[in-house]
Amino acid sequence: MAACQVALDIDDPRGTQQRLGRAVREAVRQGAELVVLPELASSGYCFRTAAEARAAAQPVDGRFVGWLTGLSAELGCVLVSGFCEASGDNAFNSAVVVQAGEVLTVYRKVHLWGSEPQFFTPGTKRPVVVDTVAGRVAPMICYDQEFPEWIRIAADLGAELITVPANWPQLAHPSNERPLEVIKAQAFAGAYRVFIVIADRCGTERGQSWIGGSVIVGPDGYPLAGPASDGVEQAEAQAQVLLADIDAHLAQDKVLGPHNHARRDRRPDLY
Amino acid sequence: MAACQVALDIDDPRGTQQRLGRAVREAVRQGAELVVLPELASSGYCFRTAAEARAAAQPVDGRFVGWLTGLSAELGCVLVSGFCEASGDNAFNSAVVVQAGEVLTVYRKVHLWGSEPQFFTPGTKRPVVVDTVAGRVAPMICYDQEFPEWIRIAADLGAELITVPANWPQLAHPSNERPLEVIKAQAFAGAYRVFIVIADRCGTERGQSWIGGSVIVGPDGYPLAGPASDGVEQAEAQAQVLLADIDAHLAQDKVLGPHNHARRDRRPDLY
Repeated sequence: MAACQVALDIDDPRGTQQRLGRAVREAVRQGAELVVLPELASSGYCFRTAAEARAAAQPVDGRFVGWLTGLSAELGCVLVSGFCEASGDNAFNSAVVVQAGEVLTVYRKVHLWGSEPQFFTPGTKRPVVVDTVAGRVAPMICYDQEFPEWIRIAADLGAELITVPANWPQLAHPSNERPLEVIKAQAFAGAYRVFIVIADRCGTERGQSWIGGSVIVGPDGYPLAGPASDGVEQAEAQAQVLLADIDAHLAQDKVLGPHNHARRDRRPDLY
Repeated sequence: MAACQVALDIDDPRGTQQRLGRAVREAVRQGAELVVLPELASSGYCFRTAAEARAAAQPVDGRFVGWLTGLSAELGCVLVSGFCEASGDNAFNSAVVVQAGEVLTVYRKVHLWGSEPQFFTPGTKRPVVVDTVAGRVAPMICYDQEFPEWIRIAADLGAELITVPANWPQLAHPSNERPLEVIKAQAFAGAYRVFIVIADRCGTERGQSWIGGSVIVGPDGYPLAGPASDGVEQAEAQAQVLLADIDAHLAQDKVLGPHNHARRDRRPDLY
C-alpha cells in the first residue's frame, strides 16, 4: 500500500491534479495495490469563503471522482482520496474509495477542524468498512483520526486498513518530538490492532504550511513507512510516496501475548 | 511532581522498601509535592502462585500503607503507590493515594495483564478523582492506562493528573522507537488534555526485565520528564527520580486553538 504526500494548491487545480496523477502512477509502478491521497485533493484546503468552497465542490458523479475511477480502472488499483463534495446545497469534506472503475463508498468527515464549519456540513454517519482487493478499508479524514472511538468502531466493524486523507496544518511542537498527530496514529493503531495509512500533504498554500507527516503504521503501533516529517527534505518536496508491503489480514488478529486480547480486554460494561 | 522508578524485588521486601523510601525523600528534597511509586511496590510483581500473592497482600490499614501515610505526614507530600491489597479472601492489585497522614482513596486495577487474573480479583469500579494539595488526582494502574476510555472518564470527572503506578514488562519493540506504552501515554494525555505521571519500575525480578519507561507527560502530549527508557543507563539504575514543575490547573483548559475543544469536539451521539 502507498500513501502519497502531494503538494495541493487551491489556486492551481490543474497542476495539483497532475501531481496527484504522477504520484499515483509512481506508487503503482512500485507495486502499490492501494493508494491513499490527501484530504480535499480535488480542491486544496485554504478556502476564504463558503462561496468559494461551494464553487469548488463537485458531486460524486463529477469530474474529480470520474478521473479517480478511470485511473483505478487503468492501473488496477484501489484509490482512497479526499475531495470537496457537493450534495444539494451543501459542501462536504469527503473521502471516496474507488476500485476497478467503481465507487465503493463515500465518507463525509464528522469531526471538523478549525474554520471548516464555515465551509462544510459535518458528516452524521459512523465509519463504514468496504471490502477491497487490498483488504477491508475504513476511510476517515484528518481530525477524525484523533478520536480513538472512531478507530475502535471501524476496527470492530472488521476494518483492517484505516485510510486517512489528511491536511495537517503546521503547529508548534518540540523539535525533537514527532507531531502529536503521528503519535496518536501510532497509539490508536496499536490499541485496536489495525493498519493506519495517513496521506498528509505538503506545499505551502495561501501562506499555510503543513506537517507533511504521512505515515503507514502497523497493528503493533510502529511505523512501517514514514513519518515523512522525520526527514528534513520533505518540506521542499512537491510529492513523496511512502510504501509498505503488508498482509492486511494480520489486522484480524487481536491477540496480545498468551493472556491478553485488544478487544476482549476492554470493559464496555464500565465505559 | 515526581515519578520514582525503583527496583522492586519480590524476594527482598525490606531492601525494596528502603529503596522506595530513599527515592521519595530524594524527590521531596528536590521539591516534589506529589510522588508516584510503581505498581505493587509493597510486594514486587512476579508471583508464582495465588497463595504467594495472597500471603503478600495487606489490608489498607496494614503495614505498607501505614508506612506511606507516615511518610506523607513527615514529608508533607502526596504519595501515590501501588500495593498488593488484601480484602476478605481476595487480593487486589491496588493503588493508594495518601496525603498528610490520611488515605484519600484506594483504586483497584480493572484491566489485568498477563497472569494477573491468577493472583488478583479485578476491580469493578470506574476511576475516582480526589482533590490533593498538588491537584486533582485520578490513580490508575499500568495496563488500565492503555484504554483511552479510562483516561477520558477520569478527565471528564475533572482529573488534572492521571497517576499511574506501573510494572511494564520488557517486550520486543523496534530499538529506534519509544515503547508503545509511552506512545499511548502521550496520545491519551494529548487527546484529553491531562497530565499523565507514570512510575514504572526497574530491577530484574525472577528473570523478568522491565521497560523502565517512567514518564511525565503534559496535556499537549509531549514529555516533561523522561521517558526514562530513552536513556541508556536506566537498566542498571536501582532507582531514578523524574521531576517536572507543573501547574496542574492547566489541565482544566481543553481549548485547542481558536475553534476547537478536546471535549466538545467529541461526538458522543455517534460513539
